[in-house]
Amino acid sequence: MELLQKRIREDGVVLPGNILKVDSFLNHQIDVSLLNKIGEEFARRFAGIPVTKILTIEASGIGVACITAQYFNVPVVFAKKVKSKNIGTDLFHCEVRSFTKDTVYPVTVSKMYLSAEDSVLIIDDFLAEGSALDALIRLVREADARVAGAGIVIEKGFQKGGDRIRSQGVRLESLAVIDRMSPEEGIVFRDDA
Amino acid sequence: MELLQKRIREDGVVLPGNILKVDSFLNHQIDVSLLNKIGEEFARRFAGIPVTKILTIEASGIGVACITAQYFNVPVVFAKKVKSKNIGTDLFHCEVRSFTKDTVYPVTVSKMYLSAEDSVLIIDDFLAEGSALDALIRLVREADARVAGAGIVIEKGFQKGGDRIRSQGVRLESLAVIDRMSPEEGIVFRDDA
Repeated sequence: MELLQKRIREDGVVLPGNILKVDSFLNHQIDVSLLNKIGEEFARRFAGIPVTKILTIEASGIGVACITAQYFNVPVVFAKKVKSKNIGTDLFHCEVRSFTKDTVYPVTVSKMYLSAEDSVLIIDDFLAEGSALDALIRLVREADARVAGAGIVIEKGFQKGGDRIRSQGVRLESLAVIDRMSPEEGIVFRDDA
Repeated sequence: MELLQKRIREDGVVLPGNILKVDSFLNHQIDVSLLNKIGEEFARRFAGIPVTKILTIEASGIGVACITAQYFNVPVVFAKKVKSKNIGTDLFHCEVRSFTKDTVYPVTVSKMYLSAEDSVLIIDDFLAEGSALDALIRLVREADARVAGAGIVIEKGFQKGGDRIRSQGVRLESLAVIDRMSPEEGIVFRDDA
């Protein structure tokens, strides 16, 4: 998605350690008009695929999921990150490993809001090692619902998550895939090659 | 806002201890078409007031803030709840007391995204004792920005936050104000009286 790549190039900040900061438009300050273009593009890429719900994970996935949901006319459900180890029986849950923070945390979704009738489009802002997306896919499957696909705003294509999840047969659409980046060289997108 | 009151009555669950669960449409599953009506209503109530930014707090404020921002054509900034006590000098920060969890946690906003030029509309899903809203107001003032107003989806009018903040001269618009509620009696809204 050219508009998105342009924005990442202009306003993204590449820091040592493969960190890309897009705080100015995606995950601290949010450019809602850009999110609308992103939502439209997800609607185009997943056209014709039945979607009954959009699933994301708090916190920074919620904005893009809500704006995107307008193009599918479906509700959003967001998985919650919980501190407690005591998970009630009314919740689907699984664990996410955070590589950046080197921790494991459980995420939950109420059993009220995912069911075998659902065809779920998973939306998130970032994909790197893919542990959050893995967890969302497991939550959908735990509910016997169908994974309609996964829509990601920015994929770090040099990390392993995207390829692993595609190889499982999940339809994964990332609007910007970064092949490599560094403070010196800047950002190289996949379709620049 | 009658549509919202109707939805709270139909789908809200009142639990002992003054807890209102609106997980099915507001803060776990999100009815985005309802959020659009809410956004429209905020635009109507704050018509004519200059707004350059919408400020909210993660996580469940983000959806309503992003949908509402479409009616004001402004970006959203969400304050982050942080665990670390080490707050960088590039951040505005203040503390929020959570009455439900009996904890104090810091919230931060990057100094990049609030400035003296901003006229900020604060948006959040719930208002009870008002400590989150107090914190957001302090963050705006720390940035020497102007508080254009505060728009709340559901105010628990029997708790003190709303009246205290109105008495400070902040223009506070709550779309549904609950005067009392109990599992036995149900929900009584302020303009039912």
